[in-house]
Amino acid sequence: MSSRAGVGAADVRMRGFAERKDVEEVLALLREGSCALDQESVSLASCAGRVLASEIASPVDVPAFERAAMDGYALRGEDTFGASAYDPVTLQLIGESMPGRPYPGEVSPGQAVRIMTGAPIPLGADSVVVVEVCREIDGAVELTEAVSPRKNVGSVGEDIRRAETVLEAGRRIRPQDVGLLASIGVASVPCVRRPRVELLITGDELLPAGSKPEGACIVDSNSPVLQALVDRDGGVQVGSRILPDRMPDLRDAMTVCDADVLLISGGSSVGKEDYAPGLVEELGTLLFHGVSMRPSSPAGGGRLGETRVFLLPGNPVSCLCAYEFFAGPTLRALGGRSRSWPHRRRSATLARKISSQIGRTDYVRVAFDGDRVLPLAISGAAILSSTVRAAGAVIVPRGLEGLAEGEVVEVFLYDDEDAPLL
Amino acid sequence: MSSRAGVGAADVRMRGFAERKDVEEVLALLREGSCALDQESVSLASCAGRVLASEIASPVDVPAFERAAMDGYALRGEDTFGASAYDPVTLQLIGESMPGRPYPGEVSPGQAVRIMTGAPIPLGADSVVVVEVCREIDGAVELTEAVSPRKNVGSVGEDIRRAETVLEAGRRIRPQDVGLLASIGVASVPCVRRPRVELLITGDELLPAGSKPEGACIVDSNSPVLQALVDRDGGVQVGSRILPDRMPDLRDAMTVCDADVLLISGGSSVGKEDYAPGLVEELGTLLFHGVSMRPSSPAGGGRLGETRVFLLPGNPVSCLCAYEFFAGPTLRALGGRSRSWPHRRRSATLARKISSQIGRTDYVRVAFDGDRVLPLAISGAAILSSTVRAAGAVIVPRGLEGLAEGEVVEVFLYDDEDAPLL
Repeated sequence: MSSRAGVGAADVRMRGFAERKDVEEVLALLREGSCALDQESVSLASCAGRVLASEIASPVDVPAFERAAMDGYALRGEDTFGASAYDPVTLQLIGESMPGRPYPGEVSPGQAVRIMTGAPIPLGADSVVVVEVCREIDGAVELTEAVSPRKNVGSVGEDIRRAETVLEAGRRIRPQDVGLLASIGVASVPCVRRPRVELLITGDELLPAGSKPEGACIVDSNSPVLQALVDRDGGVQVGSRILPDRMPDLRDAMTVCDADVLLISGGSSVGKEDYAPGLVEELGTLLFHGVSMRPSSPAGGGRLGETRVFLLPGNPVSCLCAYEFFAGPTLRALGGRSRSWPHRRRSATLARKISSQIGRTDYVRVAFDGDRVLPLAISGAAILSSTVRAAGAVIVPRGLEGLAEGEVVEVFLYDDEDAPLL
Repeated sequence: MSSRAGVGAADVRMRGFAERKDVEEVLALLREGSCALDQESVSLASCAGRVLASEIASPVDVPAFERAAMDGYALRGEDTFGASAYDPVTLQLIGESMPGRPYPGEVSPGQAVRIMTGAPIPLGADSVVVVEVCREIDGAVELTEAVSPRKNVGSVGEDIRRAETVLEAGRRIRPQDVGLLASIGVASVPCVRRPRVELLITGDELLPAGSKPEGACIVDSNSPVLQALVDRDGGVQVGSRILPDRMPDLRDAMTVCDADVLLISGGSSVGKEDYAPGLVEELGTLLFHGVSMRPSSPAGGGRLGETRVFLLPGNPVSCLCAYEFFAGPTLRALGGRSRSWPHRRRSATLARKISSQIGRTDYVRVAFDGDRVLPLAISGAAILSSTVRAAGAVIVPRGLEGLAEGEVVEVFLYDDEDAPLL
């Protein structure tokens, strides 16, 4: 592929974009190139939430022995036939079987063994009578209910059978999956490697997060937001630097980058010191630059060797939006997860119309007003607080001039929704 | 409150429960006693996902200066009136204002300053003409479009005003919130302390997770599941031990526990070695023991001093279910989160009826069959694999005898749902 593939303009600085790609075109370009990274071995204690790289078959039966499903007495079911409250059956109590401490002998007709849930069924016994219908008297046990053979007995492999596939490749590991892996004796788990992500934040005006804003300088808010988004999407941040608006500094930083994903914030637009797109073109492949969307239209992306690069506009809402549309799906795909947005969604009726433009995709911050949803902001890429005040975002697809009042829209919620249970 | 308050039976071992509480009663008991823990200071880099303990007001205006909203030229708007492609206006270019490097002088009539997005507007200028309609020629700039004063100028405090409350107490901190906190100069954030959780797993038959099952011994699967659930719910695991089924060992471990929440797995039922409920009663307050539900009916809970104790049955599905119903909500409430279940939910039609019993709450593992949902298991508390095969759980409330085929039910999904976006 030529290093100019798909690029709208070679140098848009102080000129403007000659053309912009549609969001869908960019997503198609990004989908082409990305599949899950290689695998790594992860300890059982750390594997929850990770993505399984290959299927797991059980090397054992679980349980490996017949076990009691209830607390009670193990015996031969036929010995209990006819037992009732009026006509109890009495059996000789010959010992007990506890979890981890099985009864060593055999149960003969007329005998019973005290047994606790999970303990091995002794030889000779075929069922368990629950404790609630029994009474112990002087080395004997009196039962007031009959049980049929196999009752309250868990068979070998009832939970998991040896050689059975218990988890498929690509599975996001749940809490209970970790328990299952433990129970079949797994100590480490083959997981898709988490993408290593480096952040380069450009701007002479930026002070590091944690500083106080001062004079013409503002505090970098993009790296804290990106760090939290990378965490959410399963990436590992391996570096974060603020760079001055100087081409050699940015070139050096890009040249030494060996992360799976490089996020460059700022320097992506048509300003005089927006060196990032040109450098991606010079050092690698610029796949796209300039997207027909609002905000984030100066977003771009490409490759530097094996590293996926995303150019995120420096304005904080644009940075967030470009991450969500382009970087986030790629990051998740590299980690073996779904490309789709991880937000919870809710349908709601628009309380006011949203104006857009055919050919442009809009990312609109919205708030709830009861059951209805109110657009807060479409423009204002510099107003990070709009994403703090908003409950979520509505996307206006490029085929529409806007969305009418009263229309039902899907809201991508910024928070995980919590409705009461009982 | 007496130490016997709400306890169904003083010693149910080898007798059975005389009575069981309803799930709702237990939830009401638990709701009474729990509110958010105290606060702690958390670094900006670690605060995403945490719960804010007190509201945050901004000490500054953001931005603290007027700034360019676009790349272009700062000038006096009235100088551009009448400019068009046929009749361009030419202004003298006297310098530039870059982010962090403002233009030091003043813009007079007939002059312009090259300016990049985010840079301070120079004295004298009142608007910015975008770069796309300008051309630089020999120290001058030619414009083909007029702008009105204030156009493309961000005013002081347009994002955040000094003294404004930017985030309310109780807010779960979003990625963009971290950015906002950075931009107002915050370095550390007052957050609700994460509950410290200790696990005690009882059972002579248990080998630690990571071992191979052997003979009558099985591998502890409850602590890996609980650890992952505690992580999910914002707790910090401060200890996890496997204890033999001996009362003195359990008593010692309970006595020295100083965690916020103690989860005891196993030893909670009516078996001979089920010491946990009696010990909670002896050393503290047993609030409930025995719940009318399936699975998890031997669940219990109470207090040991300031520590909330939960007795989780040792069977793995019961352990998971008792955690979700009782321990999870308490853990989240202590951490300042919502008590409600964190699962995503989906409505679906039942493909087969679920039988239950009036007066009992059931936790039913279900799978999807297209759009319909199929009950997999109600009983089988020992079959952890049922929660691995299932897509989620349906709860049958105690007022119902069951749920009919064709009924629409709410499924609590085990996985976060991911539907395609575009």
